[in-house]
Amino acid sequence: MATPAAVMKLYGWAISPFVSRALLALEEAGVDYELVPMSPQAGDHRRPEHLARNPFAMVPVLEDGDLTLFESRAIARHVLRKHRPELLGAGAGGSLERAAMVDVWLEVEAHQLSPPAVAIVVECFAAPLLGRERDQTVVDENVEKLRKVLEVYEARLGECSAGTSPATSSASPTSAPSPSCTASWPPSTPPPWSRRSRASAPGGRASPRAPRPRRWRSSYRSARPDCWSTLPNNRIDA
Amino acid sequence: MATPAAVMKLYGWAISPFVSRALLALEEAGVDYELVPMSPQAGDHRRPEHLARNPFAMVPVLEDGDLTLFESRAIARHVLRKHRPELLGAGAGGSLERAAMVDVWLEVEAHQLSPPAVAIVVECFAAPLLGRERDQTVVDENVEKLRKVLEVYEARLGECSAGTSPATSSASPTSAPSPSCTASWPPSTPPPWSRRSRASAPGGRASPRAPRPRRWRSSYRSARPDCWSTLPNNRIDA
Repeated sequence: MATPAAVMKLYGWAISPFVSRALLALEEAGVDYELVPMSPQAGDHRRPEHLARNPFAMVPVLEDGDLTLFESRAIARHVLRKHRPELLGAGAGGSLERAAMVDVWLEVEAHQLSPPAVAIVVECFAAPLLGRERDQTVVDENVEKLRKVLEVYEARLGECSAGTSPATSSASPTSAPSPSCTASWPPSTPPPWSRRSRASAPGGRASPRAPRPRRWRSSYRSARPDCWSTLPNNRIDA
Repeated sequence: MATPAAVMKLYGWAISPFVSRALLALEEAGVDYELVPMSPQAGDHRRPEHLARNPFAMVPVLEDGDLTLFESRAIARHVLRKHRPELLGAGAGGSLERAAMVDVWLEVEAHQLSPPAVAIVVECFAAPLLGRERDQTVVDENVEKLRKVLEVYEARLGECSAGTSPATSSASPTSAPSPSCTASWPPSTPPPWSRRSRASAPGGRASPRAPRPRRWRSSYRSARPDCWSTLPNNRIDA
């Protein structure tokens, strides 16, 4: 009788957007996994047993049998390569061209989209929790950067909406910069980076709720773009 | 008679570390390519024809037949996946485990090694060229961050030097943060981030030399580490 495969273990705290990225990939892959909770307040990430998993003292860490991985994007790639390779442009129906286009947009997320998004989240969520005032100048600068990046995304989405089939998604599971922030967003309130929001929230304090991983799956599956890897190249007319 | 494959075209200026990363992958792959020179001073990257290649107005851009790619790490992945897949832990002899470990260390380069290295380069090279003083506090902070990252690399290299074969490299071609800075380094002078270097270079001005891509190939092949993907996991004892 074959030995059943060990369930993957993910170490970390789900409120972390980096852990969320890994959770999202696990959910998208539809595999069984165990989230091993850790406490940043208790310094769990600095204990020897965790440093043996990740020498940079960060979360998440994935254990998949004998394999121990860190860096959330590498974890997401591994999970998808193993269980949903088509989402990386590989496997059946994949090609060098599709894989390359997925890579391009994963890199865009990492180096164009994520930095301003993280800066906004830090100012709007972390700063008040750390007892300092939000620096609105930093927020405004990064909202402007994010706006320009999203304009490119918008053009890209508009370009591919006409000519692609709704068959596959691709870069979305690993490209969410901060799913924990959007998944728990109260839709009836203004976003916390707006000046109006600051005025309506005395002291600038936010109450980030823990993400609900099981909800991502359905919301992502209905919202995910289908076009990152389906066009032959990424030309966008200026 | 078969049509010969079109030579890949790489757009950009070779002094850019991002262009250097793509050049390094092309050299490592041993393929023919054409470097199409552009001028940042002339604003070539903001012209419509380049925005059609990369909407973020950045270099490098790779044209490979009908495929147009940007983001240097995505370009490097594509070149290696196409011509040297074993360097990404794939192809003959590859495995999910090897590919995952390559991904981990590529992400470590992108998010742990590169940011402090770039910050140091900006202060030591770009700041004087932009007519402002180097901020030594920023340099010192990032040298300390870089030191900690390199300690992890050192431990990793020490761990794998005993038990691995010198058969393959992997993450090195895409993980060089700023090859143009190291490839052209005068070995007899102190590094520019040291205080002594600042004192010995009045005005803090540096004279960065253009990289010499053809030299990278031999220097990288002799120096590249063999161990990023050859261990079953990345445990490092704390």
